[in-house]
Amino acid sequence: MLTFIYLVAIVAEGMSGALAAGRRNMDVFGVAVIAFVTALGGGTVRDLILGRFPIGWTQHPEYVGMVIVAGLLTVTVAQHMFRLRRLFLLLDAMGLVAFSLIGCDVALGLGYSVPVVIMSGMITGICGGVLRDVLCNQVPVVFQRELYAMVSLVVCCLFLGLRALEVNLALNTGLSFAVGLTMRLLAIRLGWKLPTFSYQQRWD
Amino acid sequence: MLTFIYLVAIVAEGMSGALAAGRRNMDVFGVAVIAFVTALGGGTVRDLILGRFPIGWTQHPEYVGMVIVAGLLTVTVAQHMFRLRRLFLLLDAMGLVAFSLIGCDVALGLGYSVPVVIMSGMITGICGGVLRDVLCNQVPVVFQRELYAMVSLVVCCLFLGLRALEVNLALNTGLSFAVGLTMRLLAIRLGWKLPTFSYQQRWD
Amino acid sequence: MLTFIYLVAIVAEGMSGALAAGRRNMDVFGVAVIAFVTALGGGTVRDLILGRFPIGWTQHPEYVGMVIVAGLLTVTVAQHMFRLRRLFLLLDAMGLVAFSLIGCDVALGLGYSVPVVIMSGMITGICGGVLRDVLCNQVPVVFQRELYAMVSLVVCCLFLGLRALEVNLALNTGLSFAVGLTMRLLAIRLGWKLPTFSYQQRWD
Repeated sequence: MLTFIYLVAIVAEGMSGALAAGRRNMDVFGVAVIAFVTALGGGTVRDLILGRFPIGWTQHPEYVGMVIVAGLLTVTVAQHMFRLRRLFLLLDAMGLVAFSLIGCDVALGLGYSVPVVIMSGMITGICGGVLRDVLCNQVPVVFQRELYAMVSLVVCCLFLGLRALEVNLALNTGLSFAVGLTMRLLAIRLGWKLPTFSYQQRWD
Repeated sequence: MLTFIYLVAIVAEGMSGALAAGRRNMDVFGVAVIAFVTALGGGTVRDLILGRFPIGWTQHPEYVGMVIVAGLLTVTVAQHMFRLRRLFLLLDAMGLVAFSLIGCDVALGLGYSVPVVIMSGMITGICGGVLRDVLCNQVPVVFQRELYAMVSLVVCCLFLGLRALEVNLALNTGLSFAVGLTMRLLAIRLGWKLPTFSYQQRWD
Repeated sequence: MLTFIYLVAIVAEGMSGALAAGRRNMDVFGVAVIAFVTALGGGTVRDLILGRFPIGWTQHPEYVGMVIVAGLLTVTVAQHMFRLRRLFLLLDAMGLVAFSLIGCDVALGLGYSVPVVIMSGMITGICGGVLRDVLCNQVPVVFQRELYAMVSLVVCCLFLGLRALEVNLALNTGLSFAVGLTMRLLAIRLGWKLPTFSYQQRWD
């Protein structure tokens, strides 16, 4: 089940990457790269940080293919995507939550401590978008917009909490997923944001 | 032979990095760093992704020295480089093709599957320039300009195709090199570009 | 002793990261991320490049906590920090020197050659700030400002030179630390800079 959601999620992330590339007038090769980085960059950074080799996607080239095809298809259907933006935001939210749970699972499997497991979930959830924004030369939106990374944090903590209470894995995954998805959708609908820090004093 | 071309290539890449640093008014330390990252960053990212330790340049500090010296010399000869720009573009094109072939070779030696071998070649070929542009705070030019990454892709596919046909390695390398170099030089001369994707609709 | 200075240093770096995040109007999550990356990013890049797993901070989650708390506290005390800027620059300078010495020590322990040991010290000293600036979408200040990376280089070379002369480790560390700190503070006070390279000719 989580694998299926994962596949939907990397396709959604690949499409979001393609749109970001289009905002920078990239060529189709740039579109493919940004789609790849957005969808699979979070898992790559996680695997590097946790010292988990071989890196996930190198063992699943079919995922790379899927993501690149999704990115290139986006170029042809982009003018229709605005109408589908609600579906798209839903898929993206599912991706965020699925990535976070998978990131926790990977770090647990390697025997890391609880704080590192949480960071692994968050890195998997948000680093793809951070790399996308760095390559598109803008400040990462996850550091500025409505609740996104915080959803990842809540999902990871809830999952680990229920796990410590020895809740059945399938139930735990389903519950964490539902809570995370609800929280993200409410955040978008109601415009929930974290407080912002503005500091403009120059020291030089 | 490929080693010799590789050495010429990292010097050319180091010089291109130095010029990019100069466009951002960096100090000589920044010039050295950007020269290093441009020339050796692609191989570093490749080694990290493939889990190949120790990283290549840590076993060849003389390459690091060469690249940094090339970068610093560029500062003194920069005003003459415009006249030599054709030579320079030739060296850069040779570098792109040589890096791609070396990247394929490394991944083949580690037993990765064909799609990963191709990605290894492309990462080696273009990531140095991507890192250079990220550190210089601009959208990577390889995602926007005339055929560059596509040359890397063609070279990698041709090399693997001829290898599957059991063509002699030296002949295969020479042929792939010649085709890649010709393609890149024609792309510069004739302004070949991939189609561009422009998407300006904001969703928020 | 170096451990104590290291702890002070990562707190100072975390605070500097938080201020940079504030200049980009990030939310408190962004502040936490940039604080983390600024303080622990240099060591992370070093461990990746040297192939040293597990990465340092994954074994010391308490450092991660400290850095994030320091970053978030900065949000509440930021308006008073300008008055404390001299203390702050002192802590930052101590961090630069301590990071450089620790980076050398780590690479020596892994048996790398002298040039790689020096680069390890410099990577540890400056990469945190480089990552901070990349995520804040600006050209890294260490490539443009008064002597900073050069201090790291001098500290690493001095430390390795005294080590080759078989100077007692504690004395060597103390001496290298004092020279580096003095050099950095003089550079700030007297505005020492490296020569800058400006190159504005476009080739296309």
